Amino acid sequence: MSEATTTDDQLRLFIERIERMEEEKKGVGDDIRDTYNEAKSQGYDTKIMRQIVRLRKMSRNDRMEMEAILETYKAALGID
Amino acid sequence: MSEATTTDDQLRLFIERIERMEEEKKGVGDDIRDTYNEAKSQGYDTKIMRQIVRLRKMSRNDRMEMEAILETYKAALGID
Repeated sequence: MSEATTTDDQLRLFIERIERMEEEKKGVGDDIRDTYNEAKSQGYDTKIMRQIVRLRKMSRNDRMEMEAILETYKAALGID
Repeated sequence: MSEATTTDDQLRLFIERIERMEEEKKGVGDDIRDTYNEAKSQGYDTKIMRQIVRLRKMSRNDRMEMEAILETYKAALGID
Protein backbone atom coordinates (compact mmCIF):
# COMPACT_ATOMS: atom_id res chain seq x y z
CA MET A 1 0.00 0.00 0.00
CA SER A 2 1.42 3.41 -0.95
CA GLU A 3 1.91 6.02 1.73
CA ALA A 4 -0.86 8.21 0.21
CA THR A 5 -3.33 5.33 0.41
CA THR A 6 -2.42 4.64 4.03
CA THR A 7 -2.98 8.30 4.85
CA ASP A 8 -6.30 8.39 2.97
CA ASP A 9 -7.41 5.27 4.84
CA GLN A 10 -6.43 6.83 8.14
CA LEU A 11 -8.44 9.96 7.40
CA ARG A 12 -11.44 7.89 6.29
CA LEU A 13 -11.23 5.79 9.47
CA PHE A 14 -11.15 8.93 11.64
CA ILE A 15 -14.17 10.37 9.80
CA GLU A 16 -16.12 7.11 10.02
CA ARG A 17 -15.32 6.77 13.72
CA ILE A 18 -16.57 10.31 14.33
CA GLU A 19 -19.71 9.65 12.25
CA ARG A 20 -20.53 6.54 14.30
CA MET A 21 -20.17 8.53 17.52
CA GLU A 22 -22.27 11.40 16.13
CA GLU A 23 -24.99 8.84 15.32
CA GLU A 24 -24.73 7.45 18.85
CA LYS A 25 -24.96 10.96 20.32
CA LYS A 26 -27.99 11.69 18.17
CA GLY A 27 -29.59 8.42 19.31
CA VAL A 28 -29.14 9.33 22.97
CA GLY A 29 -30.53 12.80 22.24
CA ASP A 30 -33.60 11.16 20.67
CA ASP A 31 -34.00 8.91 23.73
CA ILE A 32 -33.87 11.97 26.01
CA ARG A 33 -36.54 13.69 23.91
CA ASP A 34 -38.69 10.52 24.03
CA THR A 35 -38.35 10.41 27.82
CA TYR A 36 -39.48 14.04 28.16
CA ASN A 37 -42.43 13.22 25.88
CA GLU A 38 -43.29 10.21 28.04
CA ALA A 39 -43.19 12.40 31.17
CA LYS A 40 -45.35 14.99 29.40
CA SER A 41 -47.92 12.31 28.56
CA GLN A 42 -47.98 11.50 32.32
CA GLY A 43 -48.87 15.12 33.04
CA TYR A 44 -45.43 16.52 33.95
CA ASP A 45 -44.35 20.00 32.81
CA THR A 46 -41.24 19.31 30.76
CA LYS A 47 -40.01 22.92 30.73
CA ILE A 48 -39.85 22.77 34.51
CA MET A 49 -38.23 19.32 34.33
CA ARG A 50 -35.48 20.78 32.12
CA GLN A 51 -34.96 23.53 34.70
CA ILE A 52 -34.71 20.89 37.44
CA VAL A 53 -32.09 18.95 35.46
CA ARG A 54 -30.12 22.19 35.09
CA LEU A 55 -30.46 23.06 38.79
CA ARG A 56 -29.38 19.59 39.95
CA LYS A 57 -26.17 19.91 37.94
CA MET A 58 -25.19 22.98 39.99
CA SER A 59 -23.64 23.07 43.46
CA ARG A 60 -25.88 24.51 46.20
CA ASN A 61 -23.58 27.56 46.33
CA ASP A 62 -23.77 28.22 42.60
CA ARG A 63 -27.53 27.74 42.67
CA MET A 64 -28.02 30.16 45.56
CA GLU A 65 -25.77 32.71 43.85
CA MET A 66 -27.76 32.34 40.62
CA GLU A 67 -31.04 32.73 42.47
CA ALA A 68 -29.80 35.87 44.26
CA ILE A 69 -28.69 37.45 40.95
CA LEU A 70 -32.03 36.48 39.38
CA GLU A 71 -33.87 38.22 42.26
CA THR A 72 -31.71 41.34 41.81
CA TYR A 73 -32.44 41.47 38.08
CA LYS A 74 -36.16 40.86 38.66
CA ALA A 75 -36.24 43.73 41.18
CA ALA A 76 -34.32 45.99 38.77
CA LEU A 77 -36.89 45.31 36.07
CA GLY A 78 -39.92 45.58 38.35
CA ILE A 79 -40.87 41.91 37.99
CA ASP A 80 -42.59 40.90 41.24
CA MET B 1 -47.35 4.02 49.56
CA SER B 2 -49.46 7.19 49.26
CA GLU B 3 -50.36 8.53 45.83
CA ALA B 4 -48.19 11.63 46.37
CA THR B 5 -45.15 9.46 47.10
CA THR B 6 -45.74 7.34 44.01
CA THR B 7 -45.94 10.49 41.91
CA ASP B 8 -42.79 11.96 43.50
CA ASP B 9 -40.98 8.67 42.84
CA GLN B 10 -42.13 8.70 39.23
CA LEU B 11 -40.85 12.25 38.74
CA ARG B 12 -37.53 11.37 40.39
CA LEU B 13 -37.18 8.28 38.19
CA PHE B 14 -37.81 10.35 35.04
CA ILE B 15 -35.24 12.95 36.12
CA GLU B 16 -32.65 10.31 37.00
CA ARG B 17 -33.21 8.50 33.69
CA ILE B 18 -32.70 11.78 31.82
CA GLU B 19 -29.59 12.58 33.86
CA ARG B 20 -28.05 9.19 33.03
CA MET B 21 -28.71 9.78 29.33
CA GLU B 22 -27.31 13.33 29.51
CA GLU B 23 -24.15 11.85 31.08
CA GLU B 24 -23.96 9.27 28.28
CA LYS B 25 -24.41 11.99 25.64
CA LYS B 26 -21.69 14.07 27.28
CA GLY B 27 -19.40 11.02 27.31
CA VAL B 28 -19.89 10.46 23.59
CA GLY B 29 -19.30 14.17 22.98
CA ASP B 30 -16.02 13.89 24.91
CA ASP B 31 -15.02 10.84 22.84
CA ILE B 32 -15.71 12.79 19.63
CA ARG B 33 -13.55 15.66 20.88
CA ASP B 34 -10.78 13.19 21.81
CA THR B 35 -10.93 11.67 18.32
CA TYR B 36 -10.59 15.09 16.68
CA ASN B 37 -7.62 15.78 18.98
CA GLU B 38 -6.05 12.45 18.01
CA ALA B 39 -6.50 13.31 14.32
CA LYS B 40 -4.99 16.75 14.95
CA SER B 41 -1.95 15.15 16.59
CA GLN B 42 -1.56 13.08 13.39
CA GLY B 43 -1.42 16.32 11.39
CA TYR B 44 -5.04 16.55 10.15
CA ASP B 45 -6.86 19.89 10.04
CA THR B 46 -9.85 19.33 12.30
CA LYS B 47 -11.80 22.39 11.09
CA ILE B 48 -11.78 20.86 7.63
CA MET B 49 -12.65 17.44 9.07
CA ARG B 50 -15.72 19.00 10.72
CA GLN B 51 -16.69 20.47 7.35
CA ILE B 52 -16.28 17.02 5.75
CA VAL B 53 -18.52 15.41 8.39
CA ARG B 54 -21.15 18.09 7.66
CA LEU B 55 -20.84 17.63 3.87
CA ARG B 56 -21.12 13.82 4.07
CA LYS B 57 -24.42 14.17 5.96
CA MET B 58 -25.94 16.02 2.99
CA SER B 59 -27.34 14.54 -0.22
CA ARG B 60 -25.34 15.31 -3.38
CA ASN B 61 -28.21 17.56 -4.54
CA ASP B 62 -28.30 19.56 -1.30
CA ARG B 63 -24.53 19.89 -1.33
CA MET B 64 -24.45 21.13 -4.92
CA GLU B 65 -27.21 23.60 -4.17
CA MET B 66 -25.34 24.86 -1.11
CA GLU B 67 -22.12 25.20 -3.11
CA ALA B 68 -23.92 27.13 -5.87
CA ILE B 69 -25.45 29.55 -3.34
CA LEU B 70 -22.07 29.96 -1.66
CA GLU B 71 -20.50 30.84 -5.04
CA THR B 72 -23.25 33.38 -5.68
CA TYR B 73 -22.74 35.04 -2.30
CA LYS B 74 -18.95 35.05 -2.75
CA ALA B 75 -19.36 36.74 -6.15
CA ALA B 76 -21.80 39.28 -4.67
CA LEU B 77 -19.26 40.17 -1.99
CA GLY B 78 -16.26 40.21 -4.34
CA ILE B 79 -14.58 37.21 -2.67
CA ASP B 80 -12.54 35.47 -5.36
